[in-house]
Amino acid sequence: MASKASIPKGTRDFSPLEVSRRHYIISAIEKHFKTFGFQPIETPTFENSETLMGKYGDEGDRLIFKILNSGDFLRKLNSDVYSSQDSLKLSTQISEKALKYDLTVPFARYVVQHQNEIDFPFKRYQIQSVFRADRPQKGRFREFLQCDADVIGSDSLWQEVEFIQLYDAVFSSLGLEGVTIKMNNRKILSGLAEVIEESDKLVDFTVALDKLDKIGEEGVKKEMLDKGISENALKNIQPIFSLEGDFSTRIKLLKSLLSNSEVGQKGIQELEFIEKALQSLPLKMAKLDLDVTLARGLNYYTGAIFEISAPEKVKMGSIGGGGRYDDLTGIFGLKNKMSGVGVSFGLDRIYLVLEELDLFPKAIEESTKVLFINFGEEEALYALKAVNALRTSSVAAELYPDAAKMKKQMTYADKRNIPYVVLAGSTEMESEVYNFKDMNSGEQESFNLEELINKLSN
Amino acid sequence: MASKASIPKGTRDFSPLEVSRRHYIISAIEKHFKTFGFQPIETPTFENSETLMGKYGDEGDRLIFKILNSGDFLRKLNSDVYSSQDSLKLSTQISEKALKYDLTVPFARYVVQHQNEIDFPFKRYQIQSVFRADRPQKGRFREFLQCDADVIGSDSLWQEVEFIQLYDAVFSSLGLEGVTIKMNNRKILSGLAEVIEESDKLVDFTVALDKLDKIGEEGVKKEMLDKGISENALKNIQPIFSLEGDFSTRIKLLKSLLSNSEVGQKGIQELEFIEKALQSLPLKMAKLDLDVTLARGLNYYTGAIFEISAPEKVKMGSIGGGGRYDDLTGIFGLKNKMSGVGVSFGLDRIYLVLEELDLFPKAIEESTKVLFINFGEEEALYALKAVNALRTSSVAAELYPDAAKMKKQMTYADKRNIPYVVLAGSTEMESEVYNFKDMNSGEQESFNLEELINKLSN
Repeated sequence: MASKASIPKGTRDFSPLEVSRRHYIISAIEKHFKTFGFQPIETPTFENSETLMGKYGDEGDRLIFKILNSGDFLRKLNSDVYSSQDSLKLSTQISEKALKYDLTVPFARYVVQHQNEIDFPFKRYQIQSVFRADRPQKGRFREFLQCDADVIGSDSLWQEVEFIQLYDAVFSSLGLEGVTIKMNNRKILSGLAEVIEESDKLVDFTVALDKLDKIGEEGVKKEMLDKGISENALKNIQPIFSLEGDFSTRIKLLKSLLSNSEVGQKGIQELEFIEKALQSLPLKMAKLDLDVTLARGLNYYTGAIFEISAPEKVKMGSIGGGGRYDDLTGIFGLKNKMSGVGVSFGLDRIYLVLEELDLFPKAIEESTKVLFINFGEEEALYALKAVNALRTSSVAAELYPDAAKMKKQMTYADKRNIPYVVLAGSTEMESEVYNFKDMNSGEQESFNLEELINKLSN
Repeated sequence: MASKASIPKGTRDFSPLEVSRRHYIISAIEKHFKTFGFQPIETPTFENSETLMGKYGDEGDRLIFKILNSGDFLRKLNSDVYSSQDSLKLSTQISEKALKYDLTVPFARYVVQHQNEIDFPFKRYQIQSVFRADRPQKGRFREFLQCDADVIGSDSLWQEVEFIQLYDAVFSSLGLEGVTIKMNNRKILSGLAEVIEESDKLVDFTVALDKLDKIGEEGVKKEMLDKGISENALKNIQPIFSLEGDFSTRIKLLKSLLSNSEVGQKGIQELEFIEKALQSLPLKMAKLDLDVTLARGLNYYTGAIFEISAPEKVKMGSIGGGGRYDDLTGIFGLKNKMSGVGVSFGLDRIYLVLEELDLFPKAIEESTKVLFINFGEEEALYALKAVNALRTSSVAAELYPDAAKMKKQMTYADKRNIPYVVLAGSTEMESEVYNFKDMNSGEQESFNLEELINKLSN
């Protein structure tokens, strides 16, 4: 029976051009991961459910895709659970595996499981699909690729410096000007809450502050007041609503604001370390910014917090982010606390940004470089000898498979964006040459095999 | 609560060395896919269940991993189905999606869904994970990577010639000598069944013949007799049990055996076409063999059948295979029959073969090329300037993140297989040089930045 040809909502097919463009971005990211000394690992597409459940909060648990046990999954089922007709209870009985939700938890599991094979500090990168049963919408998918780099087993601030360099290197090599690397530090946020004597309201405070560009200064203040933060407290942190100037200037302003907070001063020292290093190691294209409203991942970040903004002229928001966490492997029972820091690149959004700014190299659109026209069996054999020699020289070459009408074959070359065509009939075979046609200019030339290879292998 | 760190049975973590070795093979395959004019596509990790179910037989249906519907999946359930407590019936009600079982059916679905965007003949390649709820055993996994190339929309025999060339090119570039490309043709098998007047027993006949290397000539004959094939028939095909000689010789023997079968002669003509082409286009390393016992995928192959054998000294069996099918897209309602032909590379087994024969290049084991020893903040900054310059020249370089004891840092370089170390303390900083140490020879030299880059960027 014929089935309808469709795919699940929130998932995507990628056409040859889309795959090539995605690979162009992935290669740039991967190349820099490697030159920065990160090593690749891969983990399975699905994990044991107990590895994932409970690690992302209640909302996360609901968004995890669960895999039905194979075979007669009801056979060993507790009949009370079955008669309760409770989806949640039943799912834990009929499903033991679940699709990856992110790369961080599987990485933590990997580190604990393979701790005796790993030389710490362990710099790993991982580029794999993750899955979320989220409501699909523009730019949000149920399967998407994550590109992560993390260092685990070192609390050195040089790592933070290196991640800033890494972001700069990747976006520079993609030719993306105007990227802003926004930084904050959990210790700065804790310090601010301490200074205004509202440490117990840290989460409410940062959640409200995080909304500054959405609801404005008045909106943030109203929310803070609603959450019980005092008028007086708001007066004391008034300067953070009008932080201006470059990275260094902002640090100085914050430093005086946080002069009475030990944890705040610790945060300032960390930022100063980074500032000093980057004065000697200037960024190529990206701009570093200090943004005290940045609070992403507050639940687990304990130090630096990064978020990457696309160039302002593109309305895209964050195209990457990360931060430092103190004890990721504790969830899998590793007793020695392992400090780590990591970043992620948002492939789908970077794709949309490069597309909008027309920054994909034209060469990506070209797959096969030369098509040999098929004039019949003998001619095809003559053509294939050249095709073989070209392929050996790493030139992508094709013979049209059938001796179809000339027009059909030329149309195929045109539609496929193949820039050159070779026509070799009996006349060319006699003189051992190939008639070479440039599809753009229409110019034709006659080459022997060696000349043909030279022409095409540059 | 701490969870145990483990992964589902039949799945694997890949360490940095394993990922690098796998990528070495994948790159070789992908490079040749591209030079042969194949274009990449990617399809989602999971498909709608109706796309997959019923396409692989009953056994296949059972091996497909099903994804539990999200949310309260019992809410809309038919209560009769629920009270029946039938796993199979229930699964169709609580699961709408399933993990990819192979790349062929999703490819057929892709072609039908995107037929108006595709220029036929469509040469596509696809390298993605597939999933089977099989009993895990040595060399058989529940998640594994498939590397497929197919052409759809052309019945030209040049495709078969090209796939033979492709296999030869890939295994040559991996340095794997002794690979045999075994070929058969469905039309030859049909012809043999016709000649012995047992056409209605074609499947029994080929299934028995396929077991020749396992159960021997007598075993095969016994099975055929058991299935009702006559003594006389066996006498008539006696020559196929002792087919000897090279590809051409075997074709000649079969040709006379099949002289009275029209379909058999058609099969012979196809083999002769390939034989003639390969005389002008000799293979580099692989050997082509005609094996009439080869019957893999008889259900859907209609012409050529390929199977690749690892070198004999490695006990591994098939490391790839494929064949021609006449109407793959019919299952998704495409009315114009589209002939296709495709091949697959078995990554996991190729990996084991290269490992056993020690054919992985040593360079794969090296990730970072040079480690800079960390002597403190000022020295680290001096080191990072060189690290940055090296990375810009595509050299993988690292700074040890902490000013740890010298021995600890050197041990790290050693364990990580990093071949060079740079030591730069205050003395070196003053003279603007870097002390460069070869970890193998122990030799040390003093270089300025330019010399260092020249030394390492080759």
